[in-house]
Amino acid sequence: MAPILLNCMGNDRNEYIKQQVQVKNPYLDTMEEDILYHFSLSTKTHNLPEMFGDIKFVCVGGSANRMKAFAQFIHQELTLPGNPDEIRDICEGTDRYCMYKVGPVLSISHGMGVPSISIMLHELIKLLHHAQCRDVILFRLGTSGGVGLAPGTVVITDKAVDYSFLPQFEQVVLGKVITRSTELDEGVASELLQYSSELQNFPTVIGNTLCTHDFYEGQGRLDGALCSFSHEEKLEYLRKAYDAGVRNIEMESTVFAAMCRVCGLKAAVICVALLNRFEGDQITSPHDVLVEYQQRPQVLVSHFIKKRLGLLV
Amino acid sequence: MAPILLNCMGNDRNEYIKQQVQVKNPYLDTMEEDILYHFSLSTKTHNLPEMFGDIKFVCVGGSANRMKAFAQFIHQELTLPGNPDEIRDICEGTDRYCMYKVGPVLSISHGMGVPSISIMLHELIKLLHHAQCRDVILFRLGTSGGVGLAPGTVVITDKAVDYSFLPQFEQVVLGKVITRSTELDEGVASELLQYSSELQNFPTVIGNTLCTHDFYEGQGRLDGALCSFSHEEKLEYLRKAYDAGVRNIEMESTVFAAMCRVCGLKAAVICVALLNRFEGDQITSPHDVLVEYQQRPQVLVSHFIKKRLGLLV
Repeated sequence: MAPILLNCMGNDRNEYIKQQVQVKNPYLDTMEEDILYHFSLSTKTHNLPEMFGDIKFVCVGGSANRMKAFAQFIHQELTLPGNPDEIRDICEGTDRYCMYKVGPVLSISHGMGVPSISIMLHELIKLLHHAQCRDVILFRLGTSGGVGLAPGTVVITDKAVDYSFLPQFEQVVLGKVITRSTELDEGVASELLQYSSELQNFPTVIGNTLCTHDFYEGQGRLDGALCSFSHEEKLEYLRKAYDAGVRNIEMESTVFAAMCRVCGLKAAVICVALLNRFEGDQITSPHDVLVEYQQRPQVLVSHFIKKRLGLLV
Repeated sequence: MAPILLNCMGNDRNEYIKQQVQVKNPYLDTMEEDILYHFSLSTKTHNLPEMFGDIKFVCVGGSANRMKAFAQFIHQELTLPGNPDEIRDICEGTDRYCMYKVGPVLSISHGMGVPSISIMLHELIKLLHHAQCRDVILFRLGTSGGVGLAPGTVVITDKAVDYSFLPQFEQVVLGKVITRSTELDEGVASELLQYSSELQNFPTVIGNTLCTHDFYEGQGRLDGALCSFSHEEKLEYLRKAYDAGVRNIEMESTVFAAMCRVCGLKAAVICVALLNRFEGDQITSPHDVLVEYQQRPQVLVSHFIKKRLGLLV
């Protein structure tokens, strides 16, 4: 198991600097002001080190309501003072994303799909840099379609893979395609898996996560407005995915993994499967069942955070 | 100018059927129930023909607040009965998208980026199909970065182009890349341009729209968390874009154009430029100026709708 984070700063200055959040942009520190437009925050109008300097855990997820619920949940879990119902959206000046701070935990929504989470990650990483944060771990807490898994199963991502089942992310830079690795932090993933076996609250597996750029044709669904393939062709693609180690499908993991990796941030992806795609395409479970499923990644990550903060033995 | 839509049904049955919203999925009509999951609507729990059968204009945009404001604005413009402040979000069962119906106008938010709008479009096109809508025109009302344009200029999209400045959209279907045309309806675009010259409220141009999959590296911004190119390389890419007829950059137009085209829906993209990208990357205009800019596509589309409904001579 990894050492308790708050006790692992070490004395080595290089090690200390390495643990800082690294932006990879030589222009950034020459700018007089940096407007984080989609957060409605700026280095001139907000004291980012004071507001965010103590952040150690950033939890992101697609839905604004879900990330608010997570912030309220972690507030209770960390037994912090104050009323969790009065928690304030730091990004209330915009409706692009929601952001809540609960002690050392930041909870942010990112919308759906790679482009939406990518805008958020650029501005988040700049925020953590401006705020001089260190030793930050990022978690994506999501929903997904399961591949050969019972609904409700939690998947900790081993590798985030693209539509060819390769652990890479293609980024267009000035009209040219470059490829980035989507490797995630093995230590954080195995620590999460260990906690899930301690908790024994719900089935949890480690597996590859297929990241697509749409919900229908790209994921082989037969129920979109467009569908040009047969049921058998769909099953064949899902079987190939399963054979490549894919256990769930979502829409953000590759860019999340790639950007965190480039910036030296430890990161993990934890998604619950809402259905088994071998058995169907539509999400038919009752609302209350889906709500409980969506809490499962939150329970696991909350356990991780409490362990790291030394709140649990 | 195109004929008044409500008077152009004709007597020809083929023409009549052509004007119906066409899903391209043979499985859809065999399904006992269709759950439009991200709208929190379903063919079993909602009477879609009754709720939506009279829709003639669908206006979509990224921001939920902006699309609510548009619904309230069009309510006033069409002088409909009732209080526009009491307008209800039809998708209140989910926070993925917002949807408002105002007479024959549907106003929907789609979040940021191609994947996010693509999920919305699949479910919207199915909704229009289930509701047996006919003669529907879709408008995307957005914000964008201008290329060689003064901030506040409205761009009516001629062609939606990808990062190579080609009018195409690459869609992955079961692990294979297919290419779709992104041609938009020329008649609607030129009709919009004509109204803009009648209105003379703000500068409006017709030009190509570059659709990228991120806001920073893909658009040549120097202010992201990652930036590996020089100021000169950025300007060179923007100059190439300008020479290819590009006048603005946003993140949804190609898939919007491609899906509408495949399904036989007339569609137009109208975005205001918030800045001139030759002059900078950050959006620095004051909040009230940006709010007024964002109303400009709404004013133009409202004028179009009123013309088509015969409310203006």
